[in-house]
Amino acid sequence: MANDAIANDHLVFFAPSGKRERFAEGTSVLEAARKLGVDLDSVCGGRGICGRCQVVPVEGANPKLGIESAADHLSPWNAVEERYTSKRGALAEGRRLGCQAKVCGDLVIDVPPDSQVHRQVVRKRAEAHPIAVDPVVTLHYVEVREPDMHDPASDFRRLAEALEAQWGVRDATCGLAVLKTLQKVLRKGGWTVTAALRGAEVVAVFPGFHERALGLAVDIGSTTIAAHLCDLVTGDVLASSGLMNPQIRFGEDLMSRVSYVMMNPGGEVEMTAAVRGALQDLAEAVAREAGFSADQILEATVVGNPIMHHLFFGIDPVELGGAPFALAVDGGLDVPAADVGLALAPGAKVYGLPLIAGHVGADTAGVVLSEGPYLKDEITLLVDVGTNAEIVLGNKDRLLACSSPTGPAFEGAQISSGQRAAPGAIERIRIDAETLEPRFRVIGSDLWSDEPGFAEATAGTGITGICGSGIIEAVAEMLLAGLVTPDGIVDGALAERTPRVVGEGRTFAYVIREADDKGPRIAVTQGDIRAIQLAKAALYAGIRLLMDRYGIASVDRITLAGAFGSHIDVRYAMILGLIPDCDLAKVGSAGNAAGTGARIALLNKASRAEIEGVVRRIEKIETAIEPSFQAHFVDAMAIPHKSDPFPHLEADLGRVFDRGTPPGGEGGTGRERRRRRG
Amino acid sequence: MANDAIANDHLVFFAPSGKRERFAEGTSVLEAARKLGVDLDSVCGGRGICGRCQVVPVEGANPKLGIESAADHLSPWNAVEERYTSKRGALAEGRRLGCQAKVCGDLVIDVPPDSQVHRQVVRKRAEAHPIAVDPVVTLHYVEVREPDMHDPASDFRRLAEALEAQWGVRDATCGLAVLKTLQKVLRKGGWTVTAALRGAEVVAVFPGFHERALGLAVDIGSTTIAAHLCDLVTGDVLASSGLMNPQIRFGEDLMSRVSYVMMNPGGEVEMTAAVRGALQDLAEAVAREAGFSADQILEATVVGNPIMHHLFFGIDPVELGGAPFALAVDGGLDVPAADVGLALAPGAKVYGLPLIAGHVGADTAGVVLSEGPYLKDEITLLVDVGTNAEIVLGNKDRLLACSSPTGPAFEGAQISSGQRAAPGAIERIRIDAETLEPRFRVIGSDLWSDEPGFAEATAGTGITGICGSGIIEAVAEMLLAGLVTPDGIVDGALAERTPRVVGEGRTFAYVIREADDKGPRIAVTQGDIRAIQLAKAALYAGIRLLMDRYGIASVDRITLAGAFGSHIDVRYAMILGLIPDCDLAKVGSAGNAAGTGARIALLNKASRAEIEGVVRRIEKIETAIEPSFQAHFVDAMAIPHKSDPFPHLEADLGRVFDRGTPPGGEGGTGRERRRRRG
Repeated sequence: MANDAIANDHLVFFAPSGKRERFAEGTSVLEAARKLGVDLDSVCGGRGICGRCQVVPVEGANPKLGIESAADHLSPWNAVEERYTSKRGALAEGRRLGCQAKVCGDLVIDVPPDSQVHRQVVRKRAEAHPIAVDPVVTLHYVEVREPDMHDPASDFRRLAEALEAQWGVRDATCGLAVLKTLQKVLRKGGWTVTAALRGAEVVAVFPGFHERALGLAVDIGSTTIAAHLCDLVTGDVLASSGLMNPQIRFGEDLMSRVSYVMMNPGGEVEMTAAVRGALQDLAEAVAREAGFSADQILEATVVGNPIMHHLFFGIDPVELGGAPFALAVDGGLDVPAADVGLALAPGAKVYGLPLIAGHVGADTAGVVLSEGPYLKDEITLLVDVGTNAEIVLGNKDRLLACSSPTGPAFEGAQISSGQRAAPGAIERIRIDAETLEPRFRVIGSDLWSDEPGFAEATAGTGITGICGSGIIEAVAEMLLAGLVTPDGIVDGALAERTPRVVGEGRTFAYVIREADDKGPRIAVTQGDIRAIQLAKAALYAGIRLLMDRYGIASVDRITLAGAFGSHIDVRYAMILGLIPDCDLAKVGSAGNAAGTGARIALLNKASRAEIEGVVRRIEKIETAIEPSFQAHFVDAMAIPHKSDPFPHLEADLGRVFDRGTPPGGEGGTGRERRRRRG
Repeated sequence: MANDAIANDHLVFFAPSGKRERFAEGTSVLEAARKLGVDLDSVCGGRGICGRCQVVPVEGANPKLGIESAADHLSPWNAVEERYTSKRGALAEGRRLGCQAKVCGDLVIDVPPDSQVHRQVVRKRAEAHPIAVDPVVTLHYVEVREPDMHDPASDFRRLAEALEAQWGVRDATCGLAVLKTLQKVLRKGGWTVTAALRGAEVVAVFPGFHERALGLAVDIGSTTIAAHLCDLVTGDVLASSGLMNPQIRFGEDLMSRVSYVMMNPGGEVEMTAAVRGALQDLAEAVAREAGFSADQILEATVVGNPIMHHLFFGIDPVELGGAPFALAVDGGLDVPAADVGLALAPGAKVYGLPLIAGHVGADTAGVVLSEGPYLKDEITLLVDVGTNAEIVLGNKDRLLACSSPTGPAFEGAQISSGQRAAPGAIERIRIDAETLEPRFRVIGSDLWSDEPGFAEATAGTGITGICGSGIIEAVAEMLLAGLVTPDGIVDGALAERTPRVVGEGRTFAYVIREADDKGPRIAVTQGDIRAIQLAKAALYAGIRLLMDRYGIASVDRITLAGAFGSHIDVRYAMILGLIPDCDLAKVGSAGNAAGTGARIALLNKASRAEIEGVVRRIEKIETAIEPSFQAHFVDAMAIPHKSDPFPHLEADLGRVFDRGTPPGGEGGTGRERRRRRG
């Protein structure tokens, strides 16, 4: 057959790419794919080892293409394929190894998704764009010449020559850390190695054939650090884990950590060491969980707010503690893992996503990358609520961002019965508008407090307090039940109707439960409502500032990011006036979108330049010095708002909010009037 | 004057570049020079701070150029120049600051050498090519925008913008180590800093104006480590120092150090730490000596033999201990100083020169860079003698290299009375051919042993042994005096003529001095002569191998590198047959040429690519596997050589060497016959 290979040409059509060409008989499918630029994977370079290049020859005539394709238009099953299947198990029905199967007739070749280098990771949420897997680090198996007394080319030079000859990689480079491992790995692998390449840089070498490329996506939050171990080939998350940020011992919130540094010279070094240590622990934990070790992690990406970012990268955060809140660096950072104290693969790098402004960090950049508002026509509002709220507004034409000082009320702090979201905390609450009686659910049980079995279900956790989502629902329900006026006053007159409204000095509180053997008294006080009002007014004012700047009165979509966004019921957030009116079908939570952004940057190299470019285009608004912020803030103190319309919400609720409080007055009936607004 | 500036054009001619152009009145001389690409230095960017742009307006008519030049065709002395001279002292007669002096008439402008960026460092030896100072790191003074709440650009972004706007540096980058220092430096400098740039990478920032750029050139020898602190602007050596290589405690010679690693797993880590620690000490010592600190050193270059190179860079040298002597890496290495344990400037890099082969290292590459045989028509033989001899032969057409295992005899080891070159060691010796009486000099005194005052002059040191150059002269003089036959036998018959020839078992020795209160008996034994014969035969055989390969019977120039080359008298080296015949006027020592190579790589960035390219072109000969090596070795055992002609040497000495030993015979008279060879 080889003799007349040159004479015979066959038409080969690749699906789904649609590329076609005539090839000489005897050309392997992998060779044909490469010549045409068809996306067909291979790590071993066509040696029948990796099994990545599996293809399916289509059976039958295709009159449209003018091709009569058949499985036996490929060369017969060969010894290399036998060896592969005996070692690695049979191929799926109808499949062949593209590097072994040779063209000997016209063919339609189907490249299944798992044989493509640039496969896509489809995300669960319909509105989230899929991630194209095209990581910055890829694996390349090579056979390296043995050293020879007649030719003093070094181990690395021979590796580089092999990479050029076998993969077309020119001018390969290598850092010292990898160089140190090279001699042993080459000899252990019997002069065959798998090189992990980052561009032309060799970041790790493994003896023989190695097919796992691991990456780590990290979200460094003030409270918790979360890490996802990803397969850089499939894009799958292999293991995830989280840890409390050990910096908490230096201060609960960001500003107290900055104060620690101000008062303790060198404190930033301690905090840097703490966060890096935790990250190393996490890397080892997730690697172990998935059956690997941390030194196989080839690449990591990191998001975090500006202070976490600077501390992780070893940069003094003190400048971020006061005006003008100057970042030391705002672009994407690409540094050796060893330089940030991480023991991953010898040449592993850590990529830090870019920062937007002194209060709007790489975490927000991650949210933007995850949600991609810059790809869409519709105007998206992204809100990430923590101690500060980071707000991004816009679409493909224009993006605006700011941060607003909401304080920790939404996290349950500064609330009399407040607590972190943990088992035993009230997270859902409903108040009967007639009886004014509450029912609630606590974290750890799916039962409502008025359902049978609730007492038993919560016996273990007790009922310990109210968390952020609980307090939001409580205040919103109190508004709907008339217990609270639109300007946030607990209506003392209702003490006549229910013993749950009780006087506390000159104000009133609403008691959700009295103390008993399962936990303390839990009430919503006037002070709690003020704290929530201040927080939500700050958030809403920030949002309005961006809407004003953009010149819009409403948004098309609202996406809440972060743990808080995942836990709250968006309807209640809107009733409370945390967020502006919007079609409720287009209001949702993106979960840990910052972490997802880190994962995208890990899996797709082009996304890094993309988010860096987007971040540079974002218009940053500094709320603290915007003259109109204060006016927006005051108007947003009312629940849901002094004047802004909520047509979608009112339609959904079937009621109209009372905006009747006259200036200076404390009055109103404490009930919403049912009316339609023009 | 400003009003009619556009209207008036003046012809400006720059010397020595010869560039000329018409410029609008009011153009500064610095601006004019930049527009024309004239080499006129400036660190402060034309602010009258650095004084680097000094120029001399020529007085008088130049008919050839058609220019009537005058000092007052420059704008009058201005306030900035006043400020500069009041701070920094008066300018030399006739000089102006090029950035302040503005063109207002036709001019011939002389740019003195010290105002040129690319000045040349002229070396003492006539044959050595000058070094053009054009280092990889340069200083740039910039004024940086202050941070602004309305614009969240980070400190680094604003620095990068300033570098682009004020110096045309695009896409500046910066490593974490420099980033960590940036905030404080910017604020300390009141938003003016001097950035040290390596390409577009900021490797250090200094507050305000900073005019010293320091570099370190290092030669890591097996025995000693030498470092030179250089001014990267002038090329001057500011301070030099040397230290014993602390690795000596792991083994005197290279192979015993490799053995240490083989027998003590992890031993390479100890040795790496030892050499890096010594280098840091040296860096601090030379910096202190010159009035600076090591953290101001912006760049370092390193040469060393392959084992020293690998150990310094943290690479296991064990592969270099046995065939096939595979280097881990052979190209130039460019790594962060911190990665090799050096605390220099935060972003400082260390450049290691390329290696030629498993036994021919970066030190030899340094010798090649220093001597530049690849630039010349004449065929140069470069020899660097240590425990191994590294040999390079060739010219601009072709270069060959090998290493030859001379052993440590030339360093005084394996010699009965041998010692290192240190005070008290005999370094020069003459033997009267009639009386057979010796006279000698010892290190530490300029007097010969038969001169008055010798006893007093050497009272302090004593006479302790004989060093490498001493033993070479002793054997050569013994040949000339007939005490030794051309095949290296001490002629026992002469015991009749002098009591200095004494029997020792079945062989004879020549006693230079008897033991007394000033030191031990010092003699040249038959064993010593054999050791020297083996060493010199190995060296000569290596040289001949290269000459054969090149196809030449003689060389045009011989340059000896290294400490050994500096100490020996080249005539005696030739009499002994260490080196082939050559015009003695073209045989010389280059001193520490390897260290000079490191200095060139430090001062001239283009030299790095140059030497890397040259090294790749060098043809490497592995003496151990060359069939003809053994034959050459045997022939070279004779003194000076069994058959090779030495016409230049014989003419110089006025005598012809005896080549008469018949095969198998031990005979001959022990005297050279005076005869002419055809």
